[in-house]
Amino acid sequence: MSQNPFSLGVSRRALLSGLAALPALSMLLPVPATARRAASDPLRSWNNTASKKAIVDFVDRVTKRGSPDFVPEDERIATFDNDGTLWAEQPMYFQLLFALDRVKALAPQHPEWKEKEPFASLLRGDVKGVLAGGEPAIAEIVIATHTGMTNEEFEQIVRDWIARAKHPITGRLYTEMVYQPMLELVAYLRAKGFKTYIVSGGGIEFMRPWTERVYGIPPENVVGSSAKVKFELREGKPVLMRLPEINFINDGPGKPVGINEHIGRRPIAAFGNSDGDLQMLQWTTGGSGLRFALIVHHTDAEREWAYDRNSSIGHLDKALDDARARGWTVVDMKNDWKTIFPFGNK
Amino acid sequence: MSQNPFSLGVSRRALLSGLAALPALSMLLPVPATARRAASDPLRSWNNTASKKAIVDFVDRVTKRGSPDFVPEDERIATFDNDGTLWAEQPMYFQLLFALDRVKALAPQHPEWKEKEPFASLLRGDVKGVLAGGEPAIAEIVIATHTGMTNEEFEQIVRDWIARAKHPITGRLYTEMVYQPMLELVAYLRAKGFKTYIVSGGGIEFMRPWTERVYGIPPENVVGSSAKVKFELREGKPVLMRLPEINFINDGPGKPVGINEHIGRRPIAAFGNSDGDLQMLQWTTGGSGLRFALIVHHTDAEREWAYDRNSSIGHLDKALDDARARGWTVVDMKNDWKTIFPFGNK
Repeated sequence: MSQNPFSLGVSRRALLSGLAALPALSMLLPVPATARRAASDPLRSWNNTASKKAIVDFVDRVTKRGSPDFVPEDERIATFDNDGTLWAEQPMYFQLLFALDRVKALAPQHPEWKEKEPFASLLRGDVKGVLAGGEPAIAEIVIATHTGMTNEEFEQIVRDWIARAKHPITGRLYTEMVYQPMLELVAYLRAKGFKTYIVSGGGIEFMRPWTERVYGIPPENVVGSSAKVKFELREGKPVLMRLPEINFINDGPGKPVGINEHIGRRPIAAFGNSDGDLQMLQWTTGGSGLRFALIVHHTDAEREWAYDRNSSIGHLDKALDDARARGWTVVDMKNDWKTIFPFGNK
Repeated sequence: MSQNPFSLGVSRRALLSGLAALPALSMLLPVPATARRAASDPLRSWNNTASKKAIVDFVDRVTKRGSPDFVPEDERIATFDNDGTLWAEQPMYFQLLFALDRVKALAPQHPEWKEKEPFASLLRGDVKGVLAGGEPAIAEIVIATHTGMTNEEFEQIVRDWIARAKHPITGRLYTEMVYQPMLELVAYLRAKGFKTYIVSGGGIEFMRPWTERVYGIPPENVVGSSAKVKFELREGKPVLMRLPEINFINDGPGKPVGINEHIGRRPIAAFGNSDGDLQMLQWTTGGSGLRFALIVHHTDAEREWAYDRNSSIGHLDKALDDARARGWTVVDMKNDWKTIFPFGNK
C-alpha cells in the first residue's frame, strides 16, 4: 500500500490488475545456471556479514533434527515480495513499463487515443504527463492493457514481452534484472525443505508465465493482485475472460490476506523491501516459534539504486523503523552483497 | 451453482462463507490406514468395471515415459469436489449441519434469537421452518456462525466440532463418512505423481483443518468459497478477522475461476458429482492433450443414498447429460464400488 496516495507509488494499486495466466505448459525449464553453480557455499554472492549469518543461523535452527526450534518440512513456508526484493523496480515497476509498451503496441487499433488522456500524453512520449494523472490515469492504462482478453491470450502477451523487452537504463532483459544473492537464497531455502512463494503487489498473471524459469517458483506458488475473471463458453470452448475490474490488491494489509487465502498456513520466514511488505512481515513474525523477517534495503546507488524513505517506488519508511525496533534483518545491499545482478552491476 | 434458486441447493451459495483457517500446525498426521493398506491393487475397493478401467488407462497413458499422451509431473493436476464426491452430503451438506449446531451452541449468548427468525425456528428444532426461509435465512445463519471471529478462532471451532459431532443418521463422525474408493483414488493419483487438490463450493476454512489428516490434501491445496478477511493489529498482535461478507463463491462457473486463481494451471483430471461441478469438468476437458473427467453418480439407496435430477442437494442433471454426450466416466456407486465407507455401509 503506498504511503502517499498522490505519488507514483499509488500506481501499484491500479497495476495489480495485472493477472490471470493459464496452465503454464512450458514451465519446466531449469533454474538459471547462476542459481545452481554454488558448489560449496550456497550463498556465495553474500559477503560474510551479519545478514548472511542471521539467515544461516535461522535455517540451521529450524531444520536440524533435535533443535528446540525445529519445524517440519510441511510448515517451512517462505514468502518473497517480488518488485525490489527479487528483481529491480527502478525507474518504475516493470509491470508499469509493460503497460506503457502495450499502449504503444495497441495504439494503431485505437486512433481515438491520440486525443484522449492519458493515452495522448503517453503516445507523445510524455510519461511524466501520464503519471501526473495519478491513480485514475494509471488504472485506465492498466485496464486497457491487462483486461478484455482471455487469460491464455494475456499469458501469451506477457511471454512475448518478457522474452524481448529491454530495461530502459541497462538495456538488459527484465528477467536478467534479478538479484543474484536472492536467487541463491531462494534456492538455498528450497534445498533446506522450504516451500518458496512469491507474494507480490504485482499482477499474479503478469508473473506466472516466467517465475518458474527465473526463480524456480511454479505458478501455484505465486500470490499477487488480480482482475476479476469470468468463465464463459465461446462457441462451446471454455475460456476465462479478464474483466475490466479489480478483484484483489495483494499489497500492504492485503498480503497476509492473500497468503492465508492461497497457502492457508502462516509463513515462518518472509522477505520484502518496502512498506508494502510491512504487514506480511508482522504476520509472519507474529506466529509462535522461531520466525525470520528480512528487508532488502537499497543502498547502492552505483551498482543498483539507492532509495528508501523519500521514494514513491519502493517506499521504505515505517517498515525500516519497525525492522530496527524488532530486530528484523536489514540487508545493506552495498555492503552485504558481493554481486547484485547475474550480469554484474547496473 | 444451484439450478433452482428456491431450493435448498441455494444454501450452498450462502454456505460458502465457511472459510478462513490459519497455519494448520497439526496437519502432519498420516493418511488413514484404510487409504494405505492397498498392497497389490491400489484401487481394491473398486469393482473391475468400466469406471476402474477408464481411470487406470488414463493414468497409464499420461504417466508412462514414451507414451504419446505423457504429461510431466508438474502438470499432473487433479481436482476433486468434496461434498458428494469425497464425503457424503445427505441429508444435507455437512457444513450446514455444522452451522445449525453452532446456532444451538451460541444460543445462550443470544437470548434475542428466541424471538428472531430463522434462529427461533431452528432452536425449536424446526429445521424445515428454517429452510423455508430460503437463501436469506441460510445466509443469516452462516454469517452468525462463520464470521465475527479471527481465522484462528474459527479454525479451533471447526476442529472441536469435527472431532466430536456425529452424523444424524449413521451416528458416525463426519470424517468417517468419506468414500473408501475415492480415498484410494486420491492416494493412487498422488503415488503416480499427481498433485491433488480439493475444489469445493464449501468453505475453504471449514475444510482446511482436517483435509490433510483425512485425504492427505494439505491446506495449500484446498480451494473453496470464502468470506472477506481483514488484517488487523489487536494490541500489537496481528490477526485476520472474518468479516460478515462473502468474498468468493467457488461453485459452478466459480470453480474454473478458483482453480485458475489458486493453481494457475488447468487440471488434466477432475472429479465431481453434481451440476455445480459442470464447469470444472468442461474447463478440465477443454484443454489440449488427454484429459479425464469423472462424475460420481449416487445410485445406491441401500448402502448410501440414491439421488440425482430431482435432488436439491447434489443436484445432477445437465452434468449427467453432458457426461454421457462427451464420454466422461460416470461412476455407478452401486455397481462400481465394492465398499462405500471405510466402516462399511450407511
